[in-house]
Amino acid sequence: MEQYIIALAQKAKEAAPVMALQTTGKKNTALQTMANALRAQKDEIIAANEKDMEAGRTKGLSKALLDRLLLNNERIEAMAQGLESLIQLADPIGETIAMWRQPNGLEIGKKRVPFGVIAMIYEARPNVTVDAAGLALKTGNALILKGGSEAFESNKCLAHILQKAVETCGLPSTAIQLVETTDREAVSILLKQRQYIDVVIPRGGAGLIQFVVNHSAVPAIETGTGNCHVYIDKYGEIPMGVNIVFNAKTQRPAVCNALETLLVHKDIAAEFLPALAEKLREKPVELRGCQRTCAILKEAVPATEEDWSTEYLDLIMAVKIVDSLDEAMAHIAKYGSGHSEAIITENYTRAKKFMDGVDAAAVYVNASTRFTDGNEFGFGAEIGISTQKLHARGPMGLEALTSEKYVIYGTGQVRS
Amino acid sequence: MEQYIIALAQKAKEAAPVMALQTTGKKNTALQTMANALRAQKDEIIAANEKDMEAGRTKGLSKALLDRLLLNNERIEAMAQGLESLIQLADPIGETIAMWRQPNGLEIGKKRVPFGVIAMIYEARPNVTVDAAGLALKTGNALILKGGSEAFESNKCLAHILQKAVETCGLPSTAIQLVETTDREAVSILLKQRQYIDVVIPRGGAGLIQFVVNHSAVPAIETGTGNCHVYIDKYGEIPMGVNIVFNAKTQRPAVCNALETLLVHKDIAAEFLPALAEKLREKPVELRGCQRTCAILKEAVPATEEDWSTEYLDLIMAVKIVDSLDEAMAHIAKYGSGHSEAIITENYTRAKKFMDGVDAAAVYVNASTRFTDGNEFGFGAEIGISTQKLHARGPMGLEALTSEKYVIYGTGQVRS
Repeated sequence: MEQYIIALAQKAKEAAPVMALQTTGKKNTALQTMANALRAQKDEIIAANEKDMEAGRTKGLSKALLDRLLLNNERIEAMAQGLESLIQLADPIGETIAMWRQPNGLEIGKKRVPFGVIAMIYEARPNVTVDAAGLALKTGNALILKGGSEAFESNKCLAHILQKAVETCGLPSTAIQLVETTDREAVSILLKQRQYIDVVIPRGGAGLIQFVVNHSAVPAIETGTGNCHVYIDKYGEIPMGVNIVFNAKTQRPAVCNALETLLVHKDIAAEFLPALAEKLREKPVELRGCQRTCAILKEAVPATEEDWSTEYLDLIMAVKIVDSLDEAMAHIAKYGSGHSEAIITENYTRAKKFMDGVDAAAVYVNASTRFTDGNEFGFGAEIGISTQKLHARGPMGLEALTSEKYVIYGTGQVRS
Repeated sequence: MEQYIIALAQKAKEAAPVMALQTTGKKNTALQTMANALRAQKDEIIAANEKDMEAGRTKGLSKALLDRLLLNNERIEAMAQGLESLIQLADPIGETIAMWRQPNGLEIGKKRVPFGVIAMIYEARPNVTVDAAGLALKTGNALILKGGSEAFESNKCLAHILQKAVETCGLPSTAIQLVETTDREAVSILLKQRQYIDVVIPRGGAGLIQFVVNHSAVPAIETGTGNCHVYIDKYGEIPMGVNIVFNAKTQRPAVCNALETLLVHKDIAAEFLPALAEKLREKPVELRGCQRTCAILKEAVPATEEDWSTEYLDLIMAVKIVDSLDEAMAHIAKYGSGHSEAIITENYTRAKKFMDGVDAAAVYVNASTRFTDGNEFGFGAEIGISTQKLHARGPMGLEALTSEKYVIYGTGQVRS
């Protein structure tokens, strides 16, 4: 097992410099070839996926998990279109971000280059296999994929199709490699290969992500957990607040940028909360409130301390009435996960204080937290949402998969 | 011990948001106050340092190590001037790097913010205590310092002086904290505090750096190791090559950007190597050559496989004759540490191939590798040289100590 993983990582490291020097034209041709191959071999993909689905049903996977696992014509077409959409995006590689001349005549430039080798560790969704392969290829990186055991057959089929496609374009097939084992030890071994792998990105549940960030010798980017807040300030517009809270909580509750805890200023709570509760009945949303909230809303059940730190990912919302903007900000600092936080207010000074003082990847005034997303931000693609502060923070597009190097042009300079 | 470290990390986390909101003016006043305090209390510093020196002599520390440890009037003045030089530098915090409008009217900005809490783990040099404190303060970060046991008394004295100085400026004294124990376990505990510490930067020998990057749950930035090469191409100018190699190898051999292995194209070796050897006799430099090198230079001793991967940090140089530019690049890819690599050539195509194809933090044409340095690059300050690809690569100035956040200005937008 260890030798298999090391050999695989070495092959990726060898493919990396070849991928780094490919032109944008060549990479775009490969993306189109990959998309065409998925379409041409969709029956094979569906057959492989059926094996995973069958095993999943036998294992008693939940309906939601089985749905994530499922591949059908529609979803395969969506994966192919995802690859094609990358063709339109500007290639970040080779860009000289800055260049300047030093007093001794040295010209120093900062140039965007690929990372080299990226490892992606993920769970049930087989579409991550294709998404990650496309993003890594467009940015000139070699990719190592380690998917969840539930999607093993689907991932293997997809990876082989993509490998063959890049190979027919004259690129190394080792530019995209899947760790073909369901042995859980594989992840631990992978996380030790710092000399071959430049960055590891985990995508999935909190358990997987915490395991990776806590055990990896390879630099990791933490993604995912979102305990997001909306704060209705005493100067907030009530209809706008109701609309934004409804959207942030109910439009897609199972995702990381959905609202989890609502904070309401005490001076507006008696008017705001009943208006909101009426709107929320459309879904309906279970409300877990502080004492003062429960006094206003009969349908709210008492919240416990645990509710403030829970990412429900469901139609449940914690609600707390606060005495001040400061209390709202302190609550967010204490319980928030640094993902997306919003204030609803018409007051300039209070909006500025919130925007400056709240420490999160995305801070909003008068908008829904649901916009924290690579496509909504205009990046055209997304490999995940970083909740750490090193390297990338917030939605990660193509640029997040690049590094830089300094290029220095001299005329014989030596240091004195 | 564990409780002490956790409490210290929590205090840093509490100080971070206070530091993040300080104006540039306030931070500059604190830097000046810190510099003044060092000058005013230099006798105290020297007395504390004398205790470390005494203990070091008893322990039998090497001369070189004792010299690194030593503080005197001159060195204290240099530390104070280092703090003052930061006052002149532009404050990166608060800069909006980019801002754009989405089709739905949302205005999305990317803003530079402090990391929050930085931990610095370092070895013998007490000046790192002051340098790191200045850089962290200028960038609005809270700092945790863990210095080497040899410098324990000096670091404690310096940290207390700096803490008092920031406190008199109305800033939290917990913005700068030293881990006041020589217990080695402290580092391991510190590296687990991911919930309080945003980034850890190790500075010191390879052993310390490897321990930190391999064991840290906190995101780490790898710094330091430099197995740097100069390649003399067959189209290189001989006097320029001799001058650059002499500089890169001998001007300060103990630093990470010094040259360690010289690669020479076979067609120029018979002319270049004797000219170089004559110049190197000025120092003199011990040469460890491949077979062909030893045939040309009688003074060269045979190199072993180990020499190609050794960072001598001394007046020793490995020399290898290569058949082609490709062989030189393959050698660098195999043995290099991704720090600084140079080609000496007059040929445009070969220069471009080297610059594009060599994967290192800094790649040079016709200049000495010794320029890989924050001051030489014009950054005005440096916290270390990153040899990893995540977040920062190459010399790290003030910007490397910052993160970003997205600020989104809406008018009631919800996602559809």
